[in-house]
Amino acid sequence: MADKEFDFSKYVASIPDFPEPGVIFRDISPLMADGKAYSEATDRITNFAKARGTEMICGPEARGFIVGCPVANQLGVGFAPARKKGKLPRETVSVKFQLEYGEAELFMHKDAVKPGQKVLIVDDLLATGGTVAATIDLVEQLGGIVVGAAFLIELEDLHGRDKMKGYDIFSLLKY
Amino acid sequence: MADKEFDFSKYVASIPDFPEPGVIFRDISPLMADGKAYSEATDRITNFAKARGTEMICGPEARGFIVGCPVANQLGVGFAPARKKGKLPRETVSVKFQLEYGEAELFMHKDAVKPGQKVLIVDDLLATGGTVAATIDLVEQLGGIVVGAAFLIELEDLHGRDKMKGYDIFSLLKY
Repeated sequence: MADKEFDFSKYVASIPDFPEPGVIFRDISPLMADGKAYSEATDRITNFAKARGTEMICGPEARGFIVGCPVANQLGVGFAPARKKGKLPRETVSVKFQLEYGEAELFMHKDAVKPGQKVLIVDDLLATGGTVAATIDLVEQLGGIVVGAAFLIELEDLHGRDKMKGYDIFSLLKY
Repeated sequence: MADKEFDFSKYVASIPDFPEPGVIFRDISPLMADGKAYSEATDRITNFAKARGTEMICGPEARGFIVGCPVANQLGVGFAPARKKGKLPRETVSVKFQLEYGEAELFMHKDAVKPGQKVLIVDDLLATGGTVAATIDLVEQLGGIVVGAAFLIELEDLHGRDKMKGYDIFSLLKY
């Protein structure tokens, strides 16, 4: 049962200078450690997903799994992971992209999403939007229809939304 | 609703020579991609967890998240990740161990598990048992009580159970 007044911000630890000087890392592990807070958070994303007819959840490694997998289970739909190099054993599609700190590449199995399937992208954090834009790219390479993207946290100063014009975005907490 | 006759083996892809020659990789991504199979699988582990009074789920990065996080959510308990170096921003405990191929180190936040808390370890695969034994070590360093370990797949030839004498073990599929 969703509690409209639930204060999620109490469950985020803010760590200065991690992983690099000048970056404030928003750590969701206190939220995950609390059964009530964790369920409340995934419930909100599940509601967002339901309203968009979501048929598949896709999340990038590894914190995208922590948020996306319970949502997939609550909806009774599948989960398609976007993973780093060398993790997926079968035929893949891939995309290279820029991160807030460094460069990265993500992969998905070619059969992870069916053409026409309605896919919601889920991750813990929307920062510069590089990871989510890459994940959207992978899903669309496979013919999936991205119905939106949902996050626990959005770092508004980094303007990640600008990389996702035309997509419906949900974030539980904004910094 | 658990379906006793559900055939999980149809949802596991067997990939020869991955990640190394001579290894058969058991790929659970078809299971995760199917909402019904994924829910059935996590339901079984949730039942095992409930029967043991589980108060916290702990899973190693990254596939442990895919199996353990929905179980935590179904139980309404928290999830404590065991992660690789450089991923956790706060004070950690750590353990080094041997893998089926190579050496590894895992970390947990010092406050991830409370002393006396009943913890179920969840991962996708029980192989040589190195990863799960390391995760048990971390939980016990923090004073948690390991009530068991649950897996989607157990590779019996690798005798992972021998590393976990005295612990209650559940596996959905055996190879």
